[in-house]
Amino acid sequence: MADLSTCPPLTRDSVRAAQDLIKPYVHLTPVLTNATLTRLASTPRSAADLEGTRWAGRTPARPTVRLWFKCENFQRIGAFKARGAFHAVERLKKDKAWVEGGGMERGILTHSSGNHAQAVALAAKENNIPAYIIMPEISAPPKIAGTKGYGANVIFSGSTAPEREAAAEKVLKETGATFVPPYDHPDIMLGQGTLGLELQEQAAAAAAATEGKAKGLDVILAPCGGGGMLSGVALSCEGTGITVFGTEPEFQGADDCKRGFEAGHRIEAVSSLTIADGLRTPVGKFPWSVIYERRLVRQMFSATEDEIRDALALVLERMKVMVEPSAVVPLAVVLFNEDFRSLVEREAGEEGWDIGVVFSGGNVALKNLGKIFGS
Amino acid sequence: MADLSTCPPLTRDSVRAAQDLIKPYVHLTPVLTNATLTRLASTPRSAADLEGTRWAGRTPARPTVRLWFKCENFQRIGAFKARGAFHAVERLKKDKAWVEGGGMERGILTHSSGNHAQAVALAAKENNIPAYIIMPEISAPPKIAGTKGYGANVIFSGSTAPEREAAAEKVLKETGATFVPPYDHPDIMLGQGTLGLELQEQAAAAAAATEGKAKGLDVILAPCGGGGMLSGVALSCEGTGITVFGTEPEFQGADDCKRGFEAGHRIEAVSSLTIADGLRTPVGKFPWSVIYERRLVRQMFSATEDEIRDALALVLERMKVMVEPSAVVPLAVVLFNEDFRSLVEREAGEEGWDIGVVFSGGNVALKNLGKIFGS
Repeated sequence: MADLSTCPPLTRDSVRAAQDLIKPYVHLTPVLTNATLTRLASTPRSAADLEGTRWAGRTPARPTVRLWFKCENFQRIGAFKARGAFHAVERLKKDKAWVEGGGMERGILTHSSGNHAQAVALAAKENNIPAYIIMPEISAPPKIAGTKGYGANVIFSGSTAPEREAAAEKVLKETGATFVPPYDHPDIMLGQGTLGLELQEQAAAAAAATEGKAKGLDVILAPCGGGGMLSGVALSCEGTGITVFGTEPEFQGADDCKRGFEAGHRIEAVSSLTIADGLRTPVGKFPWSVIYERRLVRQMFSATEDEIRDALALVLERMKVMVEPSAVVPLAVVLFNEDFRSLVEREAGEEGWDIGVVFSGGNVALKNLGKIFGS
Repeated sequence: MADLSTCPPLTRDSVRAAQDLIKPYVHLTPVLTNATLTRLASTPRSAADLEGTRWAGRTPARPTVRLWFKCENFQRIGAFKARGAFHAVERLKKDKAWVEGGGMERGILTHSSGNHAQAVALAAKENNIPAYIIMPEISAPPKIAGTKGYGANVIFSGSTAPEREAAAEKVLKETGATFVPPYDHPDIMLGQGTLGLELQEQAAAAAAATEGKAKGLDVILAPCGGGGMLSGVALSCEGTGITVFGTEPEFQGADDCKRGFEAGHRIEAVSSLTIADGLRTPVGKFPWSVIYERRLVRQMFSATEDEIRDALALVLERMKVMVEPSAVVPLAVVLFNEDFRSLVEREAGEEGWDIGVVFSGGNVALKNLGKIFGS
């Protein structure tokens, strides 16, 4: 990864510069609306709906919202991770010492069993750089095949963090490759943040093109795993007046960033098997500095497994787009989290809010869908 | 349904007139491209791929194609059936005798457990007309709920055709409602054909906007159940130089239209449990007159259950859009049917063909997806 001392400052302008760098490599993904989901989100839940939930007995909130979905499931490799990976490589290519010292020939390396692996493999391939991807032996065969399909060298390791790190260490030593971390680096954060700029511009343009309330977004909700994307989106909104909220699964403590807000310090370890498998990671040090220490994310909200599953079913059945469970956590909060919904009712009133909702990716094994929906 | 004697002639101009009538009610659905699927379709299959298939031992074809997907899964009610239903109602509204004789008050009726039921229910609702939908008692609860959600009166019947018709007879007698058949009527065919006009125009505009081969479509492939849509699409192409092919599942004889082409007469009964459940119907009399007797469809091709399943997985996993099994039968033919692929190689040569592929709908129960992909 590019030396930290050479990284651009963590600002909205730096996100804009990242956008210029990666534009030739990534898709400008569409922003979709959906009348059914906007109506559902703007309909108070019934008292019966709230029974057995964290909000049993509370008066259901009456929020008014208009939803704008940023569809990174249509991004290259099926997830926003392509942005950060291409940005990391573009930044390395601007590092004269790296290039002239043979960095391109030695290649890049990462460990991931998920979207980041394929993103790094793709970015390497398109730049004719060797890629080394450490994957757990137990990874799903299609993920292994997908990563190999981009021409990467796949190296297997055990499933624990120490096993993975030992394998990475060994390959780094052998190859001299440069490590590209999945989220805890400014270049990754700035790359992911480019989706926030696009979402702002696309929603404003679409609103201007239709009659009536052409005021652009009030709020963006994004999922938070390691926090690379949430922090990047937050940077993309700084100074715009758009408020950013983060969302997490709450299962088995995967809501580490929310708990960190409450505790006043970063939670450094998480062990959760939430179905939102992209969000099982604790938030990283650099993302935390933007999200919490600089207060660029106002608040964190969480969703239960059932809420994530229900939101996923609605998107698949009503919007007809494929998304992965991690991608619908923000929508689950908008639809089902009464704390968030009360906040919207209170602050947005009758006029309501235009809410940008990030669909982070669409890579879900079809067998898993069957498991999730209990066939 | 409008009296046959008042129906417009079955011509491309009549499809255009239908388009003007239904424009306020239906979505102009997007036409998408997908680099991965176009590449796959243009890659010869390996000899190993063909082992155990109908083409074992044959030299794999080398077709060159560019695919344009008409996404009726994003249509209202999630399928193209909205077009025919709205057109049927608009045509009734132009029938003075029907309107002045109290037709609007007596309402419309159909029998269907699928997309046509919801389409009729929606068209009735938006015109403040009562709708009566005969559904088999064993229909999936979400389909019943969906139809009721549009405000229709749902009347249950047994599952056999005689039971269904008896139930319909009874309700017709009691209510004086007007029957709207699912496919075997000129107004339905003309309504469904509007998607063909759009596809032609959208593909030509997109091709013109990009550099290079801006010549529009050479071919359209559509699924065929009752044939209402295939015949309408064929009418929409008459005189344009675009060749239309029909596609069917072959399982348990669901390829009745293909067999009809071979026999030289319409096959009137089918009993198949193909996973392409929208295509279990024999082709209707009026559609057959266009498809076969007027030779507006050049040829029929079929796909096996495995080929349909593989095409479905590719669309869900690579394009990230939800489609139902019936919707991917044309794509299955393009990807896997060596008879069709040889024809393309032979006739289109190195320049290849621009092929419009109709994604007919996206209404699939999530539990069924699990079953289809054997979780």
